[in-house]
Amino acid sequence: MTIDSSALQQRFVSIRENKTFETFVIAVIIISALVIGAKTYTINAQVDLLFKILDITITLFFLSEIIIRMIADHSLKKFFSKGWNIFDFIIVTASLIPIDESEMALLGRLLRIFRVLRLVSIIPELRVLLNAFVTAIPRMVYVSVLMFIFFYIYAAMGSIFFSKINPELWDNITISMLTLFRVATFEDWTDVMYETMEVYPFSWIFYLTFIFIVAFVFLNMMIGIVLEVLQREHEKFDRETGEGEAGEVHWIREHTESMEQRMKSMEKMLINLQENKKSPSDPS
Amino acid sequence: MTIDSSALQQRFVSIRENKTFETFVIAVIIISALVIGAKTYTINAQVDLLFKILDITITLFFLSEIIIRMIADHSLKKFFSKGWNIFDFIIVTASLIPIDESEMALLGRLLRIFRVLRLVSIIPELRVLLNAFVTAIPRMVYVSVLMFIFFYIYAAMGSIFFSKINPELWDNITISMLTLFRVATFEDWTDVMYETMEVYPFSWIFYLTFIFIVAFVFLNMMIGIVLEVLQREHEKFDRETGEGEAGEVHWIREHTESMEQRMKSMEKMLINLQENKKSPSDPS
Amino acid sequence: MTIDSSALQQRFVSIRENKTFETFVIAVIIISALVIGAKTYTINAQVDLLFKILDITITLFFLSEIIIRMIADHSLKKFFSKGWNIFDFIIVTASLIPIDESEMALLGRLLRIFRVLRLVSIIPELRVLLNAFVTAIPRMVYVSVLMFIFFYIYAAMGSIFFSKINPELWDNITISMLTLFRVATFEDWTDVMYETMEVYPFSWIFYLTFIFIVAFVFLNMMIGIVLEVLQREHEKFDRETGEGEAGEVHWIREHTESMEQRMKSMEKMLINLQENKKSPSDPS
Amino acid sequence: MTIDSSALQQRFVSIRENKTFETFVIAVIIISALVIGAKTYTINAQVDLLFKILDITITLFFLSEIIIRMIADHSLKKFFSKGWNIFDFIIVTASLIPIDESEMALLGRLLRIFRVLRLVSIIPELRVLLNAFVTAIPRMVYVSVLMFIFFYIYAAMGSIFFSKINPELWDNITISMLTLFRVATFEDWTDVMYETMEVYPFSWIFYLTFIFIVAFVFLNMMIGIVLEVLQREHEKFDRETGEGEAGEVHWIREHTESMEQRMKSMEKMLINLQENKKSPSDPS
Repeated sequence: MTIDSSALQQRFVSIRENKTFETFVIAVIIISALVIGAKTYTINAQVDLLFKILDITITLFFLSEIIIRMIADHSLKKFFSKGWNIFDFIIVTASLIPIDESEMALLGRLLRIFRVLRLVSIIPELRVLLNAFVTAIPRMVYVSVLMFIFFYIYAAMGSIFFSKINPELWDNITISMLTLFRVATFEDWTDVMYETMEVYPFSWIFYLTFIFIVAFVFLNMMIGIVLEVLQREHEKFDRETGEGEAGEVHWIREHTESMEQRMKSMEKMLINLQENKKSPSDPS
Repeated sequence: MTIDSSALQQRFVSIRENKTFETFVIAVIIISALVIGAKTYTINAQVDLLFKILDITITLFFLSEIIIRMIADHSLKKFFSKGWNIFDFIIVTASLIPIDESEMALLGRLLRIFRVLRLVSIIPELRVLLNAFVTAIPRMVYVSVLMFIFFYIYAAMGSIFFSKINPELWDNITISMLTLFRVATFEDWTDVMYETMEVYPFSWIFYLTFIFIVAFVFLNMMIGIVLEVLQREHEKFDRETGEGEAGEVHWIREHTESMEQRMKSMEKMLINLQENKKSPSDPS
Repeated sequence: MTIDSSALQQRFVSIRENKTFETFVIAVIIISALVIGAKTYTINAQVDLLFKILDITITLFFLSEIIIRMIADHSLKKFFSKGWNIFDFIIVTASLIPIDESEMALLGRLLRIFRVLRLVSIIPELRVLLNAFVTAIPRMVYVSVLMFIFFYIYAAMGSIFFSKINPELWDNITISMLTLFRVATFEDWTDVMYETMEVYPFSWIFYLTFIFIVAFVFLNMMIGIVLEVLQREHEKFDRETGEGEAGEVHWIREHTESMEQRMKSMEKMLINLQENKKSPSDPS
Repeated sequence: MTIDSSALQQRFVSIRENKTFETFVIAVIIISALVIGAKTYTINAQVDLLFKILDITITLFFLSEIIIRMIADHSLKKFFSKGWNIFDFIIVTASLIPIDESEMALLGRLLRIFRVLRLVSIIPELRVLLNAFVTAIPRMVYVSVLMFIFFYIYAAMGSIFFSKINPELWDNITISMLTLFRVATFEDWTDVMYETMEVYPFSWIFYLTFIFIVAFVFLNMMIGIVLEVLQREHEKFDRETGEGEAGEVHWIREHTESMEQRMKSMEKMLINLQENKKSPSDPS
């Protein structure tokens, strides 16, 4: 029995590692994505039936694929230690819940959409890109908090002064923040400004300082962080391959280390020579 | 007496340094911010009373907190030497002024909004971010002056030629500059252009050169400065920790220094050896 | 006969290499471009005739130019091994097809437009720029795929929830993606949002997360890639000329190498000295 | 006489170098700029008279200032060798032409506006900024040419296919290029697209490829060039002051050079030692 299950596990590992199987999984994910897309068009009953059958087939395939990967990993703990596996598991099991009522159907369709994200977990190049993006998150959170504070202050000011002018844009702090986000994207922001300038002629100072602080400095800081992550990643690659400036610097560092070692030994020899010089001359 | 006050001071220092106290202050600032935000919604009399009581409590808490920090610092001079302390002091004392008339009430609410900025002074990561932003200011001022000169020139040209076409946009130099700022943000700038092109068919040259000069070069210069500050900060961090390219370069620099020192001593020994060689052989 | 053809070939090579000839070709391409541009204006019959004659002349000139270059290269294989040559050949031969019917005439005019691209293949500085752009393509493709996945997911969600609100914007996944691209460029995106917020008041979360993910992160990644390519190119140039930081690093690398070599030989000599020291003293 | 003129020249040099005089010139330029700005407001006759007197005073002051600088420089050739001096000379002499007719008055006012640019030539920090901008021009020209070629191709295509749909936007190649520039700035570009999509449903490909090529790649290239110029400038400053990474690299480079020199001399000494070793042992 144990030999049997071990052999099965071995087979499943080989299936998981199989290049053709991987390509097939990618193909199924793409088909699944196309079905989701096609469903947004008005379709006749026959095609709809075909899609239903396809959907069941895809769901079952994903189920078996995840079971294969679960068994291939030696323990469930190991399987669930990877974030992407948890993501896959939720997407697949959630698709199993039978959904026919209109309310739940919407949720079911929503879950099926997220299957497309599985492409990212399977194609390595995309995973690298997303990881770079995830690396930037911690620093981005602080920039976002700082940006949020400025948004909050300006939104509070906005809704105190402008709420009577146009309640649709400035009624309370939530709506005001949405309006300010719109101003930050330069979307018809002059319409917002000209309206309040009729009551407060100097309210352009409010908008201009806001745009300068938020759009110019903080957005650029975000750009800066993304660029930095990219550059850092690149540098790391350079150092490993020895190409580019960072690669050369790393080469120099290593060789400086060995040169210093060599110098130390040379110095010792010189000291030896000096002492030898003196010691033989002394007895003579 | 003096021992008493010194003990009190010591206690206040320990309160100020206390991590729980800091978290509590952050919590109070956030509550204060939420109250400001909540007030922008239409609220009934009961909630309004609650908010008034909350506001008095918060004001008193901030007052005692700032007094604690004042006493914890050994002298008022030391306290006021930090920019953020001055900022805190103004915000807190200004909140103490009783405000009930409609005119002053607005100012009072405005001052309370700025309390949110105290979050920046308390959370170190935000302080670092804001400092990076402040570091970039001197260079940004010169770019802004250069940008302002170009805005001024174009605005003067605009109001000379276009003021009769649309006085709302080009009546005088202030309005013209606002219109040009709008053009620089690409906000419905074609509407502005098509209008003047009916009278001056070649006025698109005015707008295109303006957009090229301001939007493409100067905005990018600003981006460049922000990025540079970020990079510089990062390099500094690298050099201190010894990580990354800048860290390696710093390592090499230091080791080159010690290698040179070692070489000098080796050279001396060699010269000694050479002279020893000659001198013992000469007398023989 | 063979001598004759070889002499002819030699003459063609010298024509191709001739600076004046190159300038003349550039001039003809520019004239060809101007004719294309001039044709978009309403022109009278006489000028139209002139343009037709000019067009035939230009086509014949391009034909002879390409034949000269074909013969100058020793074999057709060599000629067609360069991508730009294939491009030139297609543009020129396609222009030869007589076009008079309205349908084909459009295609003919379209092909003539692409002649302007020949400028890029002739001016070296432009070719370098375009090459830098082409170098960035592989990495850009992955970013585009990742961006496409996010667009697809959001478009599917959009057409599921919003198709009944405004079929013009959200009817199916293709239209939804176009609408989302519009949102990503900040083009009247608030109009799109306010419309759906009337039915789903929290749909602003949909737009804001989309804008944050796509506009802030992925667009910046694209910027990052372009900047990286530029920097890399610059570094390469620096290393070759020895200017700038990268140039200095390269200089150091090379000299560290030679220093290490020198050290090794010095060490050997020192070892020799030490052994000599011992060996002569031993026999004595 | 010659002594007199030489003394005068010396005095003029000292005036030109005088810090107070420089500040005074800056003040006059700013007043001149303010007068230009104030004139765009509707002003009564009295103020207008004041402005006229001010204008004459300023013109005369600038005239005497330029004469002082001309005499201070030893020859006219030296004076006119600096680009900014030529600029100043044109602005000042052009202001001397009496202008009272309505047509010429406009030109006169236009020339007076450009006086503001003199601020850039006087304040060194602004001159540095503008020089950085000028350094980037040659590379920017090639990017602009490449961008222009793409604009031209798309504009030609646009006016061939879309001129019948909306002649106001696509009538001829000039108008088409302006429309495409508008699309590149994302200004109501969807309105342009939706209009043509009614006739050619797939014309979104035209706009999307255009936006991708122009807005994403080429604009970013321009950003890249500006950033590069900034970085290069910064690196140069670093190398000179020895601060930052580039400064350290430069330090290492110099010390590697001296270390190599020292090594060469040490090697020579070692070779000497080895030969000495052999030579004295030989005769014995």
